Amino acid sequence: MTERKVLKPKPNAKVQITADIACGEGQPLWIVAGPCAVEGASQLEATAQALLQNGVSSLRGGAFKPRTSPYTFQGMGEEGLQLLDGIRQNHQIAVVTEVMAIEQIEVVSQHADVIQVGSRNMQNFSLLKALGELDKPILLKRGLASTLDEFLWAAEYILAGGNDKVILCERGIRSFDPETRNVLDLGGVAVLKEKTHLPVIVDPSHAAGRRDIITALSRAAIAVGADGLIVEIHPNPQASVSDAAQALSLDDFTALMTSLDPIAQAMGRSLRQPALVKA
Amino acid sequence: MTERKVLKPKPNAKVQITADIACGEGQPLWIVAGPCAVEGASQLEATAQALLQNGVSSLRGGAFKPRTSPYTFQGMGEEGLQLLDGIRQNHQIAVVTEVMAIEQIEVVSQHADVIQVGSRNMQNFSLLKALGELDKPILLKRGLASTLDEFLWAAEYILAGGNDKVILCERGIRSFDPETRNVLDLGGVAVLKEKTHLPVIVDPSHAAGRRDIITALSRAAIAVGADGLIVEIHPNPQASVSDAAQALSLDDFTALMTSLDPIAQAMGRSLRQPALVKA
Amino acid sequence: MTERKVLKPKPNAKVQITADIACGEGQPLWIVAGPCAVEGASQLEATAQALLQNGVSSLRGGAFKPRTSPYTFQGMGEEGLQLLDGIRQNHQIAVVTEVMAIEQIEVVSQHADVIQVGSRNMQNFSLLKALGELDKPILLKRGLASTLDEFLWAAEYILAGGNDKVILCERGIRSFDPETRNVLDLGGVAVLKEKTHLPVIVDPSHAAGRRDIITALSRAAIAVGADGLIVEIHPNPQASVSDAAQALSLDDFTALMTSLDPIAQAMGRSLRQPALVKA
Amino acid sequence: MTERKVLKPKPNAKVQITADIACGEGQPLWIVAGPCAVEGASQLEATAQALLQNGVSSLRGGAFKPRTSPYTFQGMGEEGLQLLDGIRQNHQIAVVTEVMAIEQIEVVSQHADVIQVGSRNMQNFSLLKALGELDKPILLKRGLASTLDEFLWAAEYILAGGNDKVILCERGIRSFDPETRNVLDLGGVAVLKEKTHLPVIVDPSHAAGRRDIITALSRAAIAVGADGLIVEIHPNPQASVSDAAQALSLDDFTALMTSLDPIAQAMGRSLRQPALVKA
Repeated sequence: MTERKVLKPKPNAKVQITADIACGEGQPLWIVAGPCAVEGASQLEATAQALLQNGVSSLRGGAFKPRTSPYTFQGMGEEGLQLLDGIRQNHQIAVVTEVMAIEQIEVVSQHADVIQVGSRNMQNFSLLKALGELDKPILLKRGLASTLDEFLWAAEYILAGGNDKVILCERGIRSFDPETRNVLDLGGVAVLKEKTHLPVIVDPSHAAGRRDIITALSRAAIAVGADGLIVEIHPNPQASVSDAAQALSLDDFTALMTSLDPIAQAMGRSLRQPALVKA
Repeated sequence: MTERKVLKPKPNAKVQITADIACGEGQPLWIVAGPCAVEGASQLEATAQALLQNGVSSLRGGAFKPRTSPYTFQGMGEEGLQLLDGIRQNHQIAVVTEVMAIEQIEVVSQHADVIQVGSRNMQNFSLLKALGELDKPILLKRGLASTLDEFLWAAEYILAGGNDKVILCERGIRSFDPETRNVLDLGGVAVLKEKTHLPVIVDPSHAAGRRDIITALSRAAIAVGADGLIVEIHPNPQASVSDAAQALSLDDFTALMTSLDPIAQAMGRSLRQPALVKA
Repeated sequence: MTERKVLKPKPNAKVQITADIACGEGQPLWIVAGPCAVEGASQLEATAQALLQNGVSSLRGGAFKPRTSPYTFQGMGEEGLQLLDGIRQNHQIAVVTEVMAIEQIEVVSQHADVIQVGSRNMQNFSLLKALGELDKPILLKRGLASTLDEFLWAAEYILAGGNDKVILCERGIRSFDPETRNVLDLGGVAVLKEKTHLPVIVDPSHAAGRRDIITALSRAAIAVGADGLIVEIHPNPQASVSDAAQALSLDDFTALMTSLDPIAQAMGRSLRQPALVKA
Repeated sequence: MTERKVLKPKPNAKVQITADIACGEGQPLWIVAGPCAVEGASQLEATAQALLQNGVSSLRGGAFKPRTSPYTFQGMGEEGLQLLDGIRQNHQIAVVTEVMAIEQIEVVSQHADVIQVGSRNMQNFSLLKALGELDKPILLKRGLASTLDEFLWAAEYILAGGNDKVILCERGIRSFDPETRNVLDLGGVAVLKEKTHLPVIVDPSHAAGRRDIITALSRAAIAVGADGLIVEIHPNPQASVSDAAQALSLDDFTALMTSLDPIAQAMGRSLRQPALVKA
């Protein structure tokens, strides 16, 4: 039987995202924030300013959007990618965005630093195989009801193809209580950190599905040992075309970062990139 | 808001599979059986004989296989499709097989009567959109932890593209008890039959993950009102390359059909196609 | 290690409920119907008439009610038991009612033929031990999220005490889809029938939590091999003090029985007690 | 409709456990540790020494044990209570222990400072009502698959009776991945802290079911805002009569406390009671 590459111990493994940014054990926390979907230039510019003011290096934003219904907004597509790329060029901010199909890989690769695979595609094995042939970081989100072992096998598909730049993301699993959208499995994060050298980050926004507990979950994620966070923020959450209930405002985001400072410090990890901070 | 086509009442709707076979309300039960994966010509030929002896019209078999690990058998691919097509030509048996990626749609369409979308791809929206452009029956399996509403929305992606030949398949949802591989949600089947005119069939094999309760679950599926069954059978289950624990032997299959006869009759539905029966 | 009594094969085991009624393999189906809670004499009398007209032998009705909130109706208590006993005496109908605490066992034993342990008390081990000392049939409902093995161990507590008159009841397990109140685990029923000689019945009402799929689930339960059903019915469902959404009207109940006739026949089991039928 | 007492805002509410110890918002973290089951005097004495060395004030230990099987060790009963009481008298350590039945309340009240209601009894409403009549702190554990709302209603049963000294305990909910025994729902803790003034603590041991992630989960629990922890420790975990896989050794416990210091500090809460520390 072939050895599982994800389980191979690699001390101090990290995934290099840009020349300045890396994610992994012993690295600064990798904080990614931004809207669910790219909606326009001013939305992205306002978000980027909030990132810079908080010393945050990476922007998320969906151009191709997986939506439950075929009749809702499906994303701005290539135009959205170009808007993201504008931010990337102007502000030295890394861009994380999703691919939903093999056909989109080429164009997304041109405009993004990190390619995200969404929960619904975690076992889209054809897509994973195609991403295994890239030399680009992949952010792989855990499936809605995937076991940790299935999650690691999905990552293995990418590593088996030759691309070892995989970052895992826990985003909540489906459960019975309608009180939260999903249940954030921080025990799962702890288990992953024991099993694999791959970096593991946490998405508190999709786990909660509600704004009021995102700060608490973010603190818990850092304390459990996650290597970073990916958070939904929006200049005007109420006007967000998707996931409005869970997006933080830009002021909320600043408050979140302030709340995380002592926890990051307690864990011995930097939270902000001072070089980036803009007055 | 656009009207949901899956909810539109269409009395006596059915999906025509071949000139002789249809699936839906008021139609004979649509029984599909065959191996998890196509392994060779003799395996398929033996299976086809068992189908014919039982008056069963449709063969399942995977040529492209979604597998948890990248290091296990991934299916025979196009060669497997050609073997399936041989059975189809020689025995007038309809063929059901899976696509995992847009790239495979064309070749699968040439060799199969029904294209299956697996549970892991239920929300692979790019794939669903591409299948919406075909004029070919699609067997859509419910995701591992998909709500019934998400399931219907996934079907809507196909209908929205213009292809209304969608058959839904309940195959068990993930739960906490290791006793069975999944929990077959027959209440879900009953709800689907209330909500949509699309045919609904049941896969007891993946629900159970064990041979000993497949007959009982098949009887229950018919009694709850399902329009058909898709069952894993194999000439030599112990030697099956995948899902060995849940495949029925060909003799088991004959016993299964015998056990189903009175229930089908009680539900007023034919189970077998006499024209097909081979001595 | 002590041998598990629930696993000891006992061919044709049955639980004798009254001189005329038994539940188990090879016995007529044991059908129990009645309101969630006893509300008054006229409610019970009307229900009893519906049972008799359908040849059904056993009445359910709660006198002590486990309620999520302490501020809702907690049952009529001993007065409710006396009302049940009236029906029992006047109509030769067996009575099934719940105990919630050891203190209630004595009085419930005087008025009921079968003592029910509710889902929330499935692992109330002190209660189970006390019931093990009785010589009275116990209807043990599966916990909301209990594994089948835990369910069998709970029964073992009763058998270990010397009372082997235990009937198991599957009533749905908790899951993620709000479409139904619970998910009826008929695969679990099939597994139980393989593992234990104890009779297994099904409660479609609590599984569904909605009236429209109870008939379909009841058919499926009989087809999977259950030894009986326990169903919520009410002379005026809308006015029911609890579980209004899932109670069948008395006419619905008659229709349910008619729908079950062919399935029971297909399974070779009698559904009605002709001796009981009242014009 | 009666107002829900658990939802009534009570700023700085706390539950007083002994003259020196309280649990709640603005209080020091309430740390409870000890064995799953009381096994003997030397086990408790060694554990107490470990508590004192770490400035921990409260000992857990089961005398009446809810066990899945009736044939496994059911606890030392009253003898176990007396052993716990010895520790309590000699070391000024508060004792937390479980009641499983109304009959046990009186004797447990005599020997313990806090009465625990286990997960399996969370909706044992008769027991909850009886505890509502006491003037004694109750540690109420969340049911295996209880919603947060059901959890709060269970607490309401106790408050409705007049006892407002209720501490809630999240201990993991049942889910599909065998990797951990349960899934710790820290989002649930955050929601509870928003909804109720009752203190909320976390049991990482039963959530994890494995030793290696308990420290990480404990850090996360404090960071999410829990008011305390209850942890299984044992002088010789391998020899523990129950829950051996999840008990920390006494050295592990010291390491756990050291790991928690910076997180507690980051949250502005004291972790240890200096007055208690024994060289």
